[in-house]
Amino acid sequence: MRTDPAQIPQLFKAACEGERLALARLLSVIERGGGAAETIGRLAFPMAGAGYTVGITGAPGSGKSTLTSALVSEMRPEGHSLGVLAIDPSSPFTGGAILGDRVRMQTHALDPDVFIRSMATRGHLGGLALAAPAAVRLLEATGRAWVLLETVGVGQVEVEIVGAADTTIVVVNPGWGDAIQANKAGLMEIADIFVINKADRDGVDATRRDLDYMLDLSGLGHDGEWRPPIHCTVATEPQGVGQLWASLGEHRRFIDENGELAKRRAMRAGEELERIVRERLAEKVNAMKASAGFVDLQRQVESGTLDPWQAANQLVTE
Amino acid sequence: MRTDPAQIPQLFKAACEGERLALARLLSVIERGGGAAETIGRLAFPMAGAGYTVGITGAPGSGKSTLTSALVSEMRPEGHSLGVLAIDPSSPFTGGAILGDRVRMQTHALDPDVFIRSMATRGHLGGLALAAPAAVRLLEATGRAWVLLETVGVGQVEVEIVGAADTTIVVVNPGWGDAIQANKAGLMEIADIFVINKADRDGVDATRRDLDYMLDLSGLGHDGEWRPPIHCTVATEPQGVGQLWASLGEHRRFIDENGELAKRRAMRAGEELERIVRERLAEKVNAMKASAGFVDLQRQVESGTLDPWQAANQLVTE
Repeated sequence: MRTDPAQIPQLFKAACEGERLALARLLSVIERGGGAAETIGRLAFPMAGAGYTVGITGAPGSGKSTLTSALVSEMRPEGHSLGVLAIDPSSPFTGGAILGDRVRMQTHALDPDVFIRSMATRGHLGGLALAAPAAVRLLEATGRAWVLLETVGVGQVEVEIVGAADTTIVVVNPGWGDAIQANKAGLMEIADIFVINKADRDGVDATRRDLDYMLDLSGLGHDGEWRPPIHCTVATEPQGVGQLWASLGEHRRFIDENGELAKRRAMRAGEELERIVRERLAEKVNAMKASAGFVDLQRQVESGTLDPWQAANQLVTE
Repeated sequence: MRTDPAQIPQLFKAACEGERLALARLLSVIERGGGAAETIGRLAFPMAGAGYTVGITGAPGSGKSTLTSALVSEMRPEGHSLGVLAIDPSSPFTGGAILGDRVRMQTHALDPDVFIRSMATRGHLGGLALAAPAAVRLLEATGRAWVLLETVGVGQVEVEIVGAADTTIVVVNPGWGDAIQANKAGLMEIADIFVINKADRDGVDATRRDLDYMLDLSGLGHDGEWRPPIHCTVATEPQGVGQLWASLGEHRRFIDENGELAKRRAMRAGEELERIVRERLAEKVNAMKASAGFVDLQRQVESGTLDPWQAANQLVTE
C-alpha cells in the first residue's frame, strides 16, 4: 500500500503516540526514498538524537540475528524501548535471509516496546545508505532509546550502513581465517567491540589470537584510546550476552566522556549531508537528460560538431 | 612515470605518426582520468569515428583472450591495423587475469600493426566506463581501423564497457547452464553474435538449444531485424574463427545499411555525455566538501539548527 504524502504528518503524530502500524508505514516510505522520505526525515530531525544506535555486522551465518535477539532479551528488563532494523543491501530478489531474521526474532514479536523491521534495497544502489540514518532517526524521534542496526552481510554498503551507528559490534566465528576475512572486509577499522559468536565450537583461541594480533598491528588502544574488547558468546544458549551488554554500556560512557561520540555524530552529519547533495545532483542529471537542451547538445556530439566535454561544460555551468 | 600534461599535444602527434610508446603513455593518462584524460579525449574527438569497435565479453575462463588472439590472426592478413584493449573492472589488487591475457596475446606482440593494451580500475568505480570510450577513440584517431574491446569478466560495469562497441560478441562455453548465466548477466540483450567457444567439449548442442530458445523468447530477428547467429569455435586450434570473422563483417554491413550503426553511435554519444556530466557533478561535490560553506552548513546540521535537506538545498542551488 502506497502512502499518500499528505498523510505523513498525521502518521508521524500517530507514530510518536506509539502506533506501530503508522511507524511501519513511515519506514516503508523511507525505504522507497524520494520526496516523501525527505518529509519524514525533516519531521523527525528536531526530535532525534536522544537515542543510541548500535551497529551489528559480520559475515552471513555468523549468528548476528540470534545475537541481536539475545541482546534484546538482555536489555529489555532494564525497561529500554528498542528498535531493531535488519538491513539487507543485497539484491531485492533474495530476501530469504530477511524472512529468516524475522523468524529468529519472533521471541520479541509480541513485546510492544520492541519494534522490529527489515529493510531491503528498493531502486538504486546506495539508497539504503540514505535510508538507514533516516530510519534510525525516525525510531529515535518516536521514542526508542536504543536502536540496533543489523546488516545481513559484509561489504562496502554494509560498512557504510553501520556507519550510522554510535557503537559498532563486529561478529566473527571461531575457526581459521574468520578474523582475517573481517580485516579484509574493512571491519577492523569500524569495530568498537568484537564478538566471537558460536564460541562453543573449536578454534576460539586462534580467532582471539588473530584479532588481538591485528588490533596490536592497528595500534589502537594507546594513549587513552579505546581498544576494542573481544567477547565470546553462544547466542543460542545464550551465553556471554550479559558481558556484551555491559561492554556496550562501557563503550557508550567512554566515547561520551572523551568527546568521541560528539565527533562521530558530527562526522556522520557531514556524510549524510554529502549523500543528500549527491542524490540531489543525480536528480538534476536525470531532469537534465529529459530537457531539450540536453537532446540538442547530444545531437551536436553525435554529429561531431561539439565534443562531449564542451557539451558537459554547457550543461553543468547552467 | 607520470606524464606532464603540457606534453600531451606532442605525444598525441607522435602517436598519430605511429609511435607506440607515445600511444601507451596517452592510454595511461586516460586510465588515470581527470583533466589530462579530457585533453586527450578532445584532441582525438574530431579524428575518430572511422574505425570499428568490436566488444568481446563472457564469463572468466570462457577463452575470450585466446579467441581475441585467434581473431586478430584472422584479420591481420587483410592488412587491417588493429588495437586490442583488455579491460578489467575488478579490483586493482588482482591483475592476474590481465597478465595471463598478455601472455596469451604474445603471438601478436611483435606485429607493429597490432597494439595490445590492458586497462584496470584506477580510482573510483565507473572510471573505466569513462575511460573505455576515450581509449577506443584514441586508438581510432591514431589509425586503428578495428578495435577489439575485451572485458575480463561479466557484470554491470562490463556490460557498460562493451556498450562502447559497434558489434558485441558474447562468448559462452558448452555445458549446462552457461547460456542461462549469460542471460542472467544481461548479455542476451547486448549480444550481436554468440560464440560457443571450447566447442570440442561435450554439451555444444544443449548450449546452442538454450541460446536459440532464449533468442526465440526475446523475439529478436523478426521484421528484418538482426538475429544473433551462434558460432562454434575452438580458439586454441583455432577452429571456426574464420566464420566468426565473416559474421562480424556481415553484422557490420547489416547495421551500417539499416541505420542501426548510426543509431547506436548516437545513443553512445548521449551516454558518454551523461557520464561526463555525472563526473563533473561529482567533482563539484568534492570541491564543495572542501569549501567553507559546506563546513559551516555541516556544523549547523551537527548542532541541530538546520536539517540536512535544507542544507543540501542551499548547497545545490548555489
